[in-house]
Amino acid sequence: MNSASIDSKPFVHPSAICECESVGEGTRIWAFAHVMCGSVIGRDCNVGDHAFIESGARVGDRVTIKNGVAIWNGVTLEDDVFVGPLAVFTNDRHPRSPRSLHARDRYAHVENWLSPTTVKQGASIGAGAVILCGITIGRFAMIAAGAVVTRDVSDHALMLDNPARQHGWACVCGKALKILACESCNRRYAECASGLKLIN
Amino acid sequence: MNSASIDSKPFVHPSAICECESVGEGTRIWAFAHVMCGSVIGRDCNVGDHAFIESGARVGDRVTIKNGVAIWNGVTLEDDVFVGPLAVFTNDRHPRSPRSLHARDRYAHVENWLSPTTVKQGASIGAGAVILCGITIGRFAMIAAGAVVTRDVSDHALMLDNPARQHGWACVCGKALKILACESCNRRYAECASGLKLIN
Amino acid sequence: MNSASIDSKPFVHPSAICECESVGEGTRIWAFAHVMCGSVIGRDCNVGDHAFIESGARVGDRVTIKNGVAIWNGVTLEDDVFVGPLAVFTNDRHPRSPRSLHARDRYAHVENWLSPTTVKQGASIGAGAVILCGITIGRFAMIAAGAVVTRDVSDHALMLDNPARQHGWACVCGKALKILACESCNRRYAECASGLKLIN
Repeated sequence: MNSASIDSKPFVHPSAICECESVGEGTRIWAFAHVMCGSVIGRDCNVGDHAFIESGARVGDRVTIKNGVAIWNGVTLEDDVFVGPLAVFTNDRHPRSPRSLHARDRYAHVENWLSPTTVKQGASIGAGAVILCGITIGRFAMIAAGAVVTRDVSDHALMLDNPARQHGWACVCGKALKILACESCNRRYAECASGLKLIN
Repeated sequence: MNSASIDSKPFVHPSAICECESVGEGTRIWAFAHVMCGSVIGRDCNVGDHAFIESGARVGDRVTIKNGVAIWNGVTLEDDVFVGPLAVFTNDRHPRSPRSLHARDRYAHVENWLSPTTVKQGASIGAGAVILCGITIGRFAMIAAGAVVTRDVSDHALMLDNPARQHGWACVCGKALKILACESCNRRYAECASGLKLIN
Repeated sequence: MNSASIDSKPFVHPSAICECESVGEGTRIWAFAHVMCGSVIGRDCNVGDHAFIESGARVGDRVTIKNGVAIWNGVTLEDDVFVGPLAVFTNDRHPRSPRSLHARDRYAHVENWLSPTTVKQGASIGAGAVILCGITIGRFAMIAAGAVVTRDVSDHALMLDNPARQHGWACVCGKALKILACESCNRRYAECASGLKLIN
């Protein structure tokens, strides 16, 4: 992706469809992406080619959504979140085809099936990762590429595998923490109730 | 997705490409989707943004195909099937680039490489799941998000993990069965040769 | 995919965007695909619907890139490579949103974050597989559908699972090798420093 100027009006690629009037300044929406009305997107975001933002989705500021990602109704991405290419969100724990005879009653009311997901500030969802719904991913968590996340994730947790398990901690800068300090930027952390907090 | 009226002509989004004349009434084809000629799609289906239906694919009635899914030649989805976003089908067990010197002989005849897949009535394929070819997924099976299915799946089986293994049974309504009864809708089941059958 | 004539000018579907002038003869670029300027694509390739080729990506001759795949800056696909549908490449081991306060310094210079990947001649990347960056995938390796590759892969290695582990060897024709001979085409192999080599 190139780096167009920030702090300007949203840019919408000529081949993209943007039906949403709540897109912040400096946000760029790339080729063949589709942003539905009733979604909210903050400032200085980057929405990659072939991405899809559904009515009811909420996206903060400085969020990066790479190619092919769909952000569904019920999904909230807080500020500074990164979502890698072809990462997958969901909003139904027990999906059936909504028009099928056996399941259509459940789909008559959204509260019967919609299960929300929140990705908190600064977290990263790796490429091709799958995020089940009804969960919260903590601040600055790092979900590895290809991981399948089935439950809540602590702040700063580094999650790998299918189903995802915690294999360590991640710094705000993205690198793995060793002995709870980042070898790259020297920030230090302590464990706390919500996972990990920055101590200097 | 909104819920347009059913029992009407197919709806094709202005940005979609529909080259197929066998699309049933009430079916909706959304933005940037591509439906090739020589495919068959039944009534009251929903084909999400960026989906692709290849010549030779067969899709029944009331099927939901979420965003970014490709249904290849050789893949059959029976009535009432749900396919989650970015779920992946295949039709070749041993893929090589068909124009390469080492493999082009095999690709000269479709029977040398095409391996069909059937998803039976009412089954659900979770978001981001991968379905190898040459297999059958039983009626009302539930493939969890992110699972990688490498062999046949019994009716009503709940499949998780990579490679997918059976971790229980699913009701027609989508919920997991406990003691072979659904806590949500009270339907009861018994084991049988093909997996599980509804008993009341 | 149909098989248009080879050894002719590139074909670009009317709905695709091709900004690249380095596309070889006989290459076909299908619906809603986007090829950026500054990429290189060889002869007789097939670029599927909704694929994306970024500036800086390098693609050899006779390469097949199936639907929805993104080839990023830093990724090189040598001749005869197959990339299955929704397979995922990456180019950053520690991704954060590049405009976030905590990570923007790292993203100011490409050498701080870009980690290259090479897929060598004739290798196959299965559908929905995830390929971490900074690695090399050997000649004629076979990455199974849904595998998550986290480190270098030997020539001819057959890789499965998350994280991917070697479960055998693959022939140039795509089939698994038994006793280091291919039951389908009778080619024979020996182990060597780089993995496996063809001996007759």
